[in-house]
Parts: sequence; C-alpha cells; structure tokens
Amino acid sequence: MRFAVTYRIFAADLAEARARAEAIALEQTVEIPRDVVPEGYIAEEILGRIEEIGPEAEGRFRATISYSPDSAGAELAQFFNVIFGNSSIQRGLRVIGIDPGEEMARRHPGPRFGIDGIRALCGRTRGGLIAPVLKPQGLDADALAEIGYRCARAGADLIKEDHGIMDQPMAPFRERVEKTAIAVARANAESGAETGAGTGRKTLYFPSLAGAPDEIEANIRFAKQAGADGVLVMPGLLGFGVVARIARDPWLNLPVMTHPSFLGPYVLSADTGFDHGVMFGTLQRLAGADISVFPNVGGRFGFSAAECGQIARACRDPAGPGLAMLPSPGGGMSVARAGNMAAMYGTDVVYLLGGSLLRLGDRIEEGIHAMRAALDRAEGAAR
Amino acid sequence: MRFAVTYRIFAADLAEARARAEAIALEQTVEIPRDVVPEGYIAEEILGRIEEIGPEAEGRFRATISYSPDSAGAELAQFFNVIFGNSSIQRGLRVIGIDPGEEMARRHPGPRFGIDGIRALCGRTRGGLIAPVLKPQGLDADALAEIGYRCARAGADLIKEDHGIMDQPMAPFRERVEKTAIAVARANAESGAETGAGTGRKTLYFPSLAGAPDEIEANIRFAKQAGADGVLVMPGLLGFGVVARIARDPWLNLPVMTHPSFLGPYVLSADTGFDHGVMFGTLQRLAGADISVFPNVGGRFGFSAAECGQIARACRDPAGPGLAMLPSPGGGMSVARAGNMAAMYGTDVVYLLGGSLLRLGDRIEEGIHAMRAALDRAEGAAR
Repeated sequence: MRFAVTYRIFAADLAEARARAEAIALEQTVEIPRDVVPEGYIAEEILGRIEEIGPEAEGRFRATISYSPDSAGAELAQFFNVIFGNSSIQRGLRVIGIDPGEEMARRHPGPRFGIDGIRALCGRTRGGLIAPVLKPQGLDADALAEIGYRCARAGADLIKEDHGIMDQPMAPFRERVEKTAIAVARANAESGAETGAGTGRKTLYFPSLAGAPDEIEANIRFAKQAGADGVLVMPGLLGFGVVARIARDPWLNLPVMTHPSFLGPYVLSADTGFDHGVMFGTLQRLAGADISVFPNVGGRFGFSAAECGQIARACRDPAGPGLAMLPSPGGGMSVARAGNMAAMYGTDVVYLLGGSLLRLGDRIEEGIHAMRAALDRAEGAAR
Repeated sequence: MRFAVTYRIFAADLAEARARAEAIALEQTVEIPRDVVPEGYIAEEILGRIEEIGPEAEGRFRATISYSPDSAGAELAQFFNVIFGNSSIQRGLRVIGIDPGEEMARRHPGPRFGIDGIRALCGRTRGGLIAPVLKPQGLDADALAEIGYRCARAGADLIKEDHGIMDQPMAPFRERVEKTAIAVARANAESGAETGAGTGRKTLYFPSLAGAPDEIEANIRFAKQAGADGVLVMPGLLGFGVVARIARDPWLNLPVMTHPSFLGPYVLSADTGFDHGVMFGTLQRLAGADISVFPNVGGRFGFSAAECGQIARACRDPAGPGLAMLPSPGGGMSVARAGNMAAMYGTDVVYLLGGSLLRLGDRIEEGIHAMRAALDRAEGAAR
C-alpha cells in the first residue's frame, strides 16, 4: 500500500507540468536519470509513480505521486525526506496534501492523546482550553514557577513555557521544570483538582524541551519524572523526529505540543514549501503532536483567516491521519476578541495567552477568569 | 560580548523599518510588549538591541540587532531560535549576516577539521576533491558496497551515500555501513593508500546518518566503530544540533558533511528566510560542518552562479566563523564543465558526482579517472 503526496506545480502547460512531476518522482526516490534506473524492483516499486495530474488554474497544476513504504523506511525523517526533501529546493512547487495510506499510517500512528485525550487529562470536557505562557526569558526558575502557580490557581487548562525558554543560565531546564511542576501541583491540590478523566479539573504543565541531541533523551525522562504533564517541542529546530519519539513511548505517555518557531519560510511563499494546513496540521499530526501552535490571524504575524481556518481543519479532520488534534492559535487573543475567536475556531481549540496576561502583574488570575467567562459566554452564544 | 544578526527588512520607509526592527528585538527574546519588559537585567541585557539601521535600496533596509549570549544559552537550537525563530514567520524579513562575537564563537567553535583537516585525511593536498555518491535507493548493502569499492579503487577522494539512503529494509543502516566501510578499506589497502596527512592518499567514506532521535546516538558510535571516516547529515530533517553534537566530540573525531534536503524554502524567496550564503555557509559552519552540499548552478535546481558564489565565499571566508569549510556543489558537474567549475569555485571544493557516473555501469572507474584528469587540466590552466 503506497502513500501519496499531492503537489501544486506552477508550469506553463500540462506537458511541462508532467515533465516536472516525472522529475519529482525521480528526485524524491532514486535521484538518478530515468534511463539509469535499474529495472525490476527499483523501477517498479521504489521509483515514484504519477497517479494523477491535471490543471488547477491558469499556470497551476496538481499532481499526485505515490511512493513505496520501502522508500520511506521506518523513520519519520526519511518519510518526510521522500515527501519533499530535495524537491523543497525547487521553485514553483508546493505540497498541498499527504495521504499516508494504510502502511505508513501504521508506522506513524500520529497523536497518542488527540482532542479527547487532552480533554480527559485536564478535565475540560467542553469549550476552548485556556493556555497561559510562562515568560519572559530572563526570569529565574522561581519567578517562572510563581507565574505558573498563579495561572494554575486561576484554573488555566494548560500552562506552557515560552519556546524561547530552554536551558539558559538564568533558569536552567532541570531546575525550572522541577520547581514549576511542584508549583503547579501545589496549585492543583489547593484547588481540589483531581487527576484523570471525568469530573475533576486539573491544570497541565508543558515545559519547553531543551538539550543537545545527546542530552535530550535524558531531559525528556527527567521532565516526565519531575511531574510534567506534556512537552512543548520546536520541530523546526529539534527535528520532527523528536515529536515522534515522544509520542510513541508508552512509558512516557506524554502529550506533545508543537511550536512553529523557525518553520515560517515553509509556508510564506505560495509557490514553495507546504500549504499552511499541511505544515501546521498534517505534518504535525503525522509526527504525533496532540496540540499544534500556529500564529493566529490578527496577531503579530500575517496569517489570514483563511490560512488559520485551513490549519484548524487539517488539525481536526476526522479522516486523519491518526487522531484529531487541537489547533492552538497564538497571539491576538483577548476578552474583546473571544466572540470572534469562538465563532472562527469552534470549541476544540487551545488559546495561548501571552503578553497581554503578563501586563496584569499581580492580577493575572483576574485575567484568566475574565477570559474564561468571555469564552464561556461566546461559546454559549454560538451554541 | 553580544552576538549580532543583520536582517534585511522590506518596508516603505525608515520609520516603518525601525518599528519592525524594534518588534524583532522583542520577538526574538522576551516575546512580550515593550511596556511589560521588566527593567534591569531583562531590559538591559536580554532584550535585543538595534545596533545599526539604514536604507539599502528602495523599499529595503538593513538592521543589525545584537543579542545576549545569556539569551541563547549553550545549545545550538536556542542560538538559532534567537537568530530567527518566530521572526522566520514574518514576511518581508531575511537574515543576511550573523556575527557570533567572541562568546558565541567560543560556545560554537565550528568545524573540527575544516579545509586543511579534510585534505589531510584524504591526502589530497591540492586541487578539487572528487566525491561520487552511492545510489540509487533500492540497491542492497552489497551492491552499494561494491560501487563504493570501485569508486575507491578509482581514487575518489570521498565517497558519500545518497541522502535518501537511511535505514530502509533493502539496505539497513548498520549492515550497509559495515559492508561499505570494509569494501572501501579493502580498496584503500589494494591501492597502497596510507592513512594520515602528507604523502599517502586515502578514500574517505561518509555514510548517511539514520535513526530516530533515541537511536541516533548509538548509530553515530556504530559508524565510527565500523570504520566510517565521516558522516553525512541532513540538518533540515535531523536538526542542526546533530551536526554540532558530532563536531564537538573528541572521541568521535569525525568530520561532518551536511546536505540541503528539506532546506529549500529557507532560501527560495528573496523576502523571507536566509541569504544563500548564510544558510549553506554560515549556519552550517556555526553548527560545525566541514563540508556543505548545495545545489549547483546548471544542475536540476535553480540556484544562480551568483548565489552559488555567495555560498562558496561564506563557506571559505577566512574571517570565520570557525575554520574555513569546503563548499560542495551537487549536480551539473561533468568532464565538459570541469573548466567552468574550476574557474568558478577554485580548488577548495568538493564535487559531487551522481547519476552521470552511475550511467557508466562497469566503467565507473574510467569516469572518475576522466573527471580527475579534466579537473587537473582545468586547475592547471587556471593557475
């Protein structure tokens, strides 16, 4: 059972588009000219195969190319390498869809928790999740833990660390994770929260994963043992494989939230890279992320409402790959915008709250309460 | 001692460019509005600082922003995250220069071998290096090892595996590395090659590194112990940190060759990402690569001669960062083009030879001899 990638090809006519599709089929697999490809297994199985090609609009064509699971092997990196490794360096080419097929879906089963799993962990059975961000970089571990405590006391569903907080001297990874996990657990206990699915609510804590490649394995285990409820990972810098490594591990049993840092150039130009939904939905889901952070419309980044909508749909598409996951728009959320956001994203969504919350200083709890109230009202109105 | 990043900003006027630069200084560090930044250490040290800003051309400005080593910590991923993490998602913004400064240069010393080190390892004291590629994907380990043997017998300076060959069932990583290392060593012995600097020449073997993040550490050590002379790494898929992890390890003492797979979108649009020289020169060098592969002008990719020249200069700039490294243009090399290539790249360069060589089948050795002769002639003529 082959997997299929759909490319948008910018070309003058169908003949040119077909020639480019044939070149992609070679480039992404054998990487040699067609006349040198050995007959038999390599030509028949390994070589990419054009399954469908046709016009999409003036100067734009759509080609679906299928590949062999043998070509992609068991690793996520090699899977992505077949999808768009060298061809990513070609202009006028964009990945607009990925169908993993049965075999690759088995090898890369996707999110361990998904929407229902995350809801069960924090006990928020309905409505959007509120996720304040611990920052700024430069605070020490005690100060960050204290903000975490306040946010948990206020009933935040999930607390994530800023992606820019990794293992700096002012708040080293292990000291910070240990202190913040303790602070959040204390707040949970004081709030009478219960762990587990069902009635009780609990604030989840997601530290930002740090460490060189030969330290990261130990740091993941440390976070788990220190009491973290999940991990924030930047696949653009640490590699998508780190997401998959965490998602697959039954002992860890930790959800993963992915962050878009360093991934911007993959989506910003319409004629290169990946469609927004493929990058921040499909690829994250194939890697095994349960929550995908992306820049919200109306914030500091230029994503349009249509692009954000495409991402949310790709995250939650019941057809897969794997379990449906939570989109997490970052930036641009406020009490005033809660109505718009609820109308746009529905209820299966994680709202990041950053700088606007920190502005409140000692009244950060009021900010979270106000946001919850605004969101409940907006979601009630939308029902 | 702060490090500095120079950004090209596309803006209507200087006031807009300055506002954007101020936003970058916040975004890449504290990620909160300016009025919320705590005074003292965070505002004075952690916050990015505009060192210089001015017009470059109509609608284009150049801003140099300095950052604190505290902000970047010890990890390469966080260093790159400060350079261009979230700002990579902004349109109209491109990194065109990085000055690590003394402190970050100490933390990230760059290539372990550099040009002189690689020359010493293979004994090619002058002239361009010839590097055939083992492929296609789909061959078994014995067939790949046999091609490696022939190339080594023909006097190739370096043999690299195709980046698309990782850990697939037809040629699993460990079996392949072991067999190919033995085959290349046998060829070296038969050629009377001697290890080490000076008179003797030796063919180096660089396998393509594979493995999920929790396997990669063991695979690196396996490659070393099996007799590999270096490693090919795709930082776009495995993370730049893997390059740094190998480069820093005195026990491994292995050179790294980096491959551009999946990195295309970072350079393809003039108003996002990184300049070609920064992506395929500076960043690779900061990570510690000794050889940087990039798509050659005139091959299957659209890089211009100017872009390739910029990459070669960034790889070899004696001013750093770290040791000068070898640019390695891939694609478009042939006996007929040897003169042009030598005129363009000079002699400190590694030429990849791929599909055109495989076309020769049993006469692959003749192909390497012919290329060596053409290159020697061209370089002699250029002197």
